Amino acid sequence: MTSRRHYIFPTLLLSTILLSPTHAADFCVADLTTQTTSGYTCKNPTNVTADDFVFTALVHSGNTSNTNKASAVPGFVQQFPGLNGLGLAVARADIEPGGAIPLHSHPAATEMIYVAEGSITAGFISGASNVVYVKKLNKGEVMVFPRGLFHFQVNTGKEHAVGIASFSDSEPGVQLVSLAIFGNDFPSFLVEKTTSIDEAEVKKLKALLGGSG
Amino acid sequence: MTSRRHYIFPTLLLSTILLSPTHAADFCVADLTTQTTSGYTCKNPTNVTADDFVFTALVHSGNTSNTNKASAVPGFVQQFPGLNGLGLAVARADIEPGGAIPLHSHPAATEMIYVAEGSITAGFISGASNVVYVKKLNKGEVMVFPRGLFHFQVNTGKEHAVGIASFSDSEPGVQLVSLAIFGNDFPSFLVEKTTSIDEAEVKKLKALLGGSG
Amino acid sequence: MTSRRHYIFPTLLLSTILLSPTHAADFCVADLTTQTTSGYTCKNPTNVTADDFVFTALVHSGNTSNTNKASAVPGFVQQFPGLNGLGLAVARADIEPGGAIPLHSHPAATEMIYVAEGSITAGFISGASNVVYVKKLNKGEVMVFPRGLFHFQVNTGKEHAVGIASFSDSEPGVQLVSLAIFGNDFPSFLVEKTTSIDEAEVKKLKALLGGSG
Amino acid sequence: MTSRRHYIFPTLLLSTILLSPTHAADFCVADLTTQTTSGYTCKNPTNVTADDFVFTALVHSGNTSNTNKASAVPGFVQQFPGLNGLGLAVARADIEPGGAIPLHSHPAATEMIYVAEGSITAGFISGASNVVYVKKLNKGEVMVFPRGLFHFQVNTGKEHAVGIASFSDSEPGVQLVSLAIFGNDFPSFLVEKTTSIDEAEVKKLKALLGGSG
Amino acid sequence: MTSRRHYIFPTLLLSTILLSPTHAADFCVADLTTQTTSGYTCKNPTNVTADDFVFTALVHSGNTSNTNKASAVPGFVQQFPGLNGLGLAVARADIEPGGAIPLHSHPAATEMIYVAEGSITAGFISGASNVVYVKKLNKGEVMVFPRGLFHFQVNTGKEHAVGIASFSDSEPGVQLVSLAIFGNDFPSFLVEKTTSIDEAEVKKLKALLGGSG
Amino acid sequence: MTSRRHYIFPTLLLSTILLSPTHAADFCVADLTTQTTSGYTCKNPTNVTADDFVFTALVHSGNTSNTNKASAVPGFVQQFPGLNGLGLAVARADIEPGGAIPLHSHPAATEMIYVAEGSITAGFISGASNVVYVKKLNKGEVMVFPRGLFHFQVNTGKEHAVGIASFSDSEPGVQLVSLAIFGNDFPSFLVEKTTSIDEAEVKKLKALLGGSG
Repeated sequence: MTSRRHYIFPTLLLSTILLSPTHAADFCVADLTTQTTSGYTCKNPTNVTADDFVFTALVHSGNTSNTNKASAVPGFVQQFPGLNGLGLAVARADIEPGGAIPLHSHPAATEMIYVAEGSITAGFISGASNVVYVKKLNKGEVMVFPRGLFHFQVNTGKEHAVGIASFSDSEPGVQLVSLAIFGNDFPSFLVEKTTSIDEAEVKKLKALLGGSG
Repeated sequence: MTSRRHYIFPTLLLSTILLSPTHAADFCVADLTTQTTSGYTCKNPTNVTADDFVFTALVHSGNTSNTNKASAVPGFVQQFPGLNGLGLAVARADIEPGGAIPLHSHPAATEMIYVAEGSITAGFISGASNVVYVKKLNKGEVMVFPRGLFHFQVNTGKEHAVGIASFSDSEPGVQLVSLAIFGNDFPSFLVEKTTSIDEAEVKKLKALLGGSG
Repeated sequence: MTSRRHYIFPTLLLSTILLSPTHAADFCVADLTTQTTSGYTCKNPTNVTADDFVFTALVHSGNTSNTNKASAVPGFVQQFPGLNGLGLAVARADIEPGGAIPLHSHPAATEMIYVAEGSITAGFISGASNVVYVKKLNKGEVMVFPRGLFHFQVNTGKEHAVGIASFSDSEPGVQLVSLAIFGNDFPSFLVEKTTSIDEAEVKKLKALLGGSG
Repeated sequence: MTSRRHYIFPTLLLSTILLSPTHAADFCVADLTTQTTSGYTCKNPTNVTADDFVFTALVHSGNTSNTNKASAVPGFVQQFPGLNGLGLAVARADIEPGGAIPLHSHPAATEMIYVAEGSITAGFISGASNVVYVKKLNKGEVMVFPRGLFHFQVNTGKEHAVGIASFSDSEPGVQLVSLAIFGNDFPSFLVEKTTSIDEAEVKKLKALLGGSG
Repeated sequence: MTSRRHYIFPTLLLSTILLSPTHAADFCVADLTTQTTSGYTCKNPTNVTADDFVFTALVHSGNTSNTNKASAVPGFVQQFPGLNGLGLAVARADIEPGGAIPLHSHPAATEMIYVAEGSITAGFISGASNVVYVKKLNKGEVMVFPRGLFHFQVNTGKEHAVGIASFSDSEPGVQLVSLAIFGNDFPSFLVEKTTSIDEAEVKKLKALLGGSG
Repeated sequence: MTSRRHYIFPTLLLSTILLSPTHAADFCVADLTTQTTSGYTCKNPTNVTADDFVFTALVHSGNTSNTNKASAVPGFVQQFPGLNGLGLAVARADIEPGGAIPLHSHPAATEMIYVAEGSITAGFISGASNVVYVKKLNKGEVMVFPRGLFHFQVNTGKEHAVGIASFSDSEPGVQLVSLAIFGNDFPSFLVEKTTSIDEAEVKKLKALLGGSG
């Protein structure tokens, strides 16, 4: 067919660029066995399917039957390997009335939360000025928490609340303030000296949060 | 009070670092009057409030009374200046049954979509292999579209669908395939020569999409 | 010899820094067997020679005996492993009179073209404003196509034209508009819905460009 | 002189590149009046002198006559504008026996400390595993605290200790754990809910650290 | 017209994203009056034309009537403002037989040279191993010089040679070894002490290259 | 215990994020056997201890019994694997009176030096303007040398001097001007042609610095 021959050029023209089955510059689905300074090495692209780019674990809430009355389900590169190197991660937070996602920071990422259900009172603390920026967010509103700064989400409303968080790195990391101080073997005399929290409170919180030392 | 004097140190100790009212290393709310290669210059931090970090325009759907039966409401740095330099942007897509967000790419960002209501059939096309990765996403599912690649979202279901998209840059940019080709004064003979689409179709689409030339 | 002892210091002084045969911070010639989010792991530097930094495939034109009357020879990291991690790639385009490099984008890189022979009419389309920037380039002129945006090169002159393109990443990627839409199994009803191109034209182009579905 | 003419070439040859008095690609001494997402705009290079690249404020200790028995003198871009955009900052910490630099993080930088005098017990807490890495450092030893993670320095020895810290960004930022929680108007009920620290302790620490609410 | 109304959607749908005349996320043509750590602030995009993306100064050779028998014409951001922030720069080198582009480095960029005419013997020196990688390049061949390393180009052939260089940054910078040492007021005793070049040679080269002190 | 159950939430709440023994997003201690474009792959975090973040080799001076009367002890990623990917490196320089760290550059990093003992006359040369910025630094003073530019340190005082250098990359690299030109097999005729240094001096320096050719 003349016209077919006429238009077949792109395959010919670009055959040296395209259709290379052994590598894909477009994405790098993580092979979680080898970590690098900027993520993981890539899974062979010939084994990649659409499912590698889809994450289904946020469909359901995590278990909020804990004192915090809250749950967090992460979709970071370890859970969602298709994100490797793409500069994004995701998580779902469920908070019952009176519950809270504790004060924490993400060492490597900015977080942005979208309120999918209910309302969430959220805030962060500036390092430069020590100002606390707090706002009650209603359904459909979005708040951003700049990278590395302490922030929190609390349900001060009367309904179950759901937040969908996105992050500016596929490995945002997380550091929970109280768990980092009281939930390990950080020696109590160092905790006291470096936080001004008194001995009795340190011991009590270590007992409560599973810490020792 | 002795103990107050006892604990007052951090203010003294770090007063040279903290409490600098004229600059804030933590964030850089955009002053939209001066653009740089990586965003905008910063608004004076003394004028920044919690509202600068909150975006409310996604509460409601855009107008879907168009042939595409879809709307997109962006929360990029131009609409949400608090994102400046933080590596994230957001958008809300509403798609009626049978509607579509047309084929497009974001030159500067990866996109990730969370299905907040209904279901969305979404996909992207690899540049390296020309493979099309398509998946029907149900409520609560997430799909990622690697940076720069063509992708689309279609509502093949029977309910109104809402997607919340996040992006890996506060200025993701957007390039709509058909609008870029047919919705401007891109000379028709160049369109034909560089796309293989024939003259009659080019003329028809230019007429439909507002193009000339 | 006294003076030799006198000046021998740098070898002594810096022997712990220099002359480490097992690693080279200066470059990272790709070992194409393991890909990471930012290129490939490095070939052992003791096996590296000057030839690793030289690329000879651009000496000759590719085959322009196709309807497009054009050829493209890439020197990306997969063809030229010495570029790995160095932020550059190269390609040679040959275009006969009336020929064209089809409309395409590079998801990960800016392109800059130098006209080595003949003349080339080139252009790109802004995503932000939808403006088409087109210019006829004579021998020795250079044009830049910002990262991720659609662009093209056409020979509207009467001589064979040669362009030497450089890119801002060793893996620029490439996405050809028509091939991405019509040269694979992208379902026709999704093509129509997401591009506004009508059914007959979609079928015709799929047939011509090797697509199905 | 023949030979002078003979060798004068570089000035001629490169006169279009070099000797441009109105801009300097090499450095960008901060003009602190305009902040961008990645530092500050540049001071006119014709007004730059060697003094712009030298910082003398670390010659002396800060005042350690406070309960913390410690001082910190920063050399960040705001104090040392020559660092703008160069990816480094510096600080001097002095700690008396029994004193401490409180638990803190740098949202935007890794820190590395060199013990210039005495000994310092230092540590950081992993976010991923909650492990505390602690070590007593003697004079001349160096420890690194990865970006964004909580860390501290304590003088458990008997001599005055001096640490010279360097940072991987000219604006590392700083967030002191106790000051961020108790030294501002962060509402007490939110502190309790998001840290598990009990009401009495929160009130006591707010009183001590100058907080309210 | 029904069909026109039928297809007009993209303008409606995306009107909040597109067609913003006051900013353009796609590019940032330099306004050379204000420099930042990563380039320059942007010219108003409404004043941008296709000419901003085209550079014509490489059409002709620079003047090679100097002892070096060579010329270099740069197309860095200062000469070609459209490159601002796009990660590329360009230059043309002309070298007569027996001529040379002197030993130099680019502090901020990798260089890649394409031989457009004649032949060029080029090379660079590894910092890690002190190995010299040298190669004679014929017309159409490409060599890469990794960022920051000393390199040179010499015409050891019998024809005029032309090289087109591209760089991985729009401000690659340049540091010529001999000019940096001998072409300014770098005190001779410091030159001798830090290079091992003896006093007589230092004085001779300072005289030849316009230096003093 | 009721209250323990009451506070045990963070472990429950965040158990999917934290306590993953097989990966650590916080740091990436180098496994020196596999190099990538941005460092090395990571050692298994379960084998990481506090010692991986501590570097003790700077406690003592290197050997200054050489003509340069100087020594340099590096703490780059190859010597201090805990720095991998963290954007910092360190080194100790000892310089006897009359000694010097020769003119050199770091292809991949800015350097900042803190004078720990004695005094050091240091300087760097701008590429853009060819200006030499020199300053005598006393104990406690800091100077910064922008990335990629030639710089040096000389002891013009009467006491032993110690400098602690930090760098903006864990692999700063180093290129010593005289050693790069005269300490290898860089052919003499190319040295002469590309540096203007005359034949006799080139031969003398090659003999002194161990070069050939």
